[in-house]
Amino acid sequence: MTDARDLTGDALRRRIDQLVRSVPDYPTAGVTFKDITPLLADGPAFASVVAEMAARVVGPVDLVAGMEARGFILAAPVALALGAGFLAVRKAGKLPGPTAAEDYELEYGSARVEIHPSTVPAGSRVLIVDDVLATGGTAAATVRLVESCGAQVVGLSFLMELSFLPGRAQLAGHRVDALLDVG
Amino acid sequence: MTDARDLTGDALRRRIDQLVRSVPDYPTAGVTFKDITPLLADGPAFASVVAEMAARVVGPVDLVAGMEARGFILAAPVALALGAGFLAVRKAGKLPGPTAAEDYELEYGSARVEIHPSTVPAGSRVLIVDDVLATGGTAAATVRLVESCGAQVVGLSFLMELSFLPGRAQLAGHRVDALLDVG
Repeated sequence: MTDARDLTGDALRRRIDQLVRSVPDYPTAGVTFKDITPLLADGPAFASVVAEMAARVVGPVDLVAGMEARGFILAAPVALALGAGFLAVRKAGKLPGPTAAEDYELEYGSARVEIHPSTVPAGSRVLIVDDVLATGGTAAATVRLVESCGAQVVGLSFLMELSFLPGRAQLAGHRVDALLDVG
Repeated sequence: MTDARDLTGDALRRRIDQLVRSVPDYPTAGVTFKDITPLLADGPAFASVVAEMAARVVGPVDLVAGMEARGFILAAPVALALGAGFLAVRKAGKLPGPTAAEDYELEYGSARVEIHPSTVPAGSRVLIVDDVLATGGTAAATVRLVESCGAQVVGLSFLMELSFLPGRAQLAGHRVDALLDVG
């Protein structure tokens, strides 16, 4: 294991590119899945990713929202690095009530994300973190959820972006950051 | 928000007890669900929990295993606090192959957890982290998964333990730690 704890910028991007595994035709034909498990298993690389995501945030943050399930793995340590709390954005039916919910479109059908609005005070500044920005459906639903609490989305931070997909367009008007474009 | 970043020992246990919400009859009648979302949303309390879980670990750790989904939220920052990598223990069907799998019993039927064994080198020292130790079924299955890779489980660390359930008995022979007994 190389000591990558202090990797930043291009060196960190190269390390991420080395460690993320591309899996063709998963979960369905024509889709290339980005498997981050080898990156997470490398302690120094994982620490560098979290430090870099936190360093690129502009302005104070009260809560970092992470989307179930892979988003939790990055969002929780980014929250601690920023001295912020963590907001779990869960799939439907996982949180005991009362919850706030938003639906978003999938290729076939739709899905729902939920939060506990009691943990999101009006006026709080919320950063949204996930591993991959693809179509942006989950992220846009999370923006709506946060704003429905009277809180402010101060930005969205992703490890990777698939820039050939319209994710950024879905998030127009918000600050969107990604460490690596894998499009 | 009080400054709880430096809370340890009894003061931290009292703070956890204040912030964790007990939800009766969820997800089913007769079960009291421990909702940790208010604790996670409190940045200083969340940071204190992670620091305390990491401080109580005995000996070096190469990987911290977190169980999907709530386990991810604690295990990922504990991994960074220990300078270790993170091992995602996922529900069946979420990881592209090759995977290793273990089944465990539920009240009705069974469930399966999976990992990528390629990210667990033989001989590595693995700490298992989750939010609640209840019957211990998922934790025991995770122990078997880690050991099936030729790696060593150096301990299991939980935020809360329901000591009226036989979780510890399921994990006999392993070092089991919990910050708070909520039995």
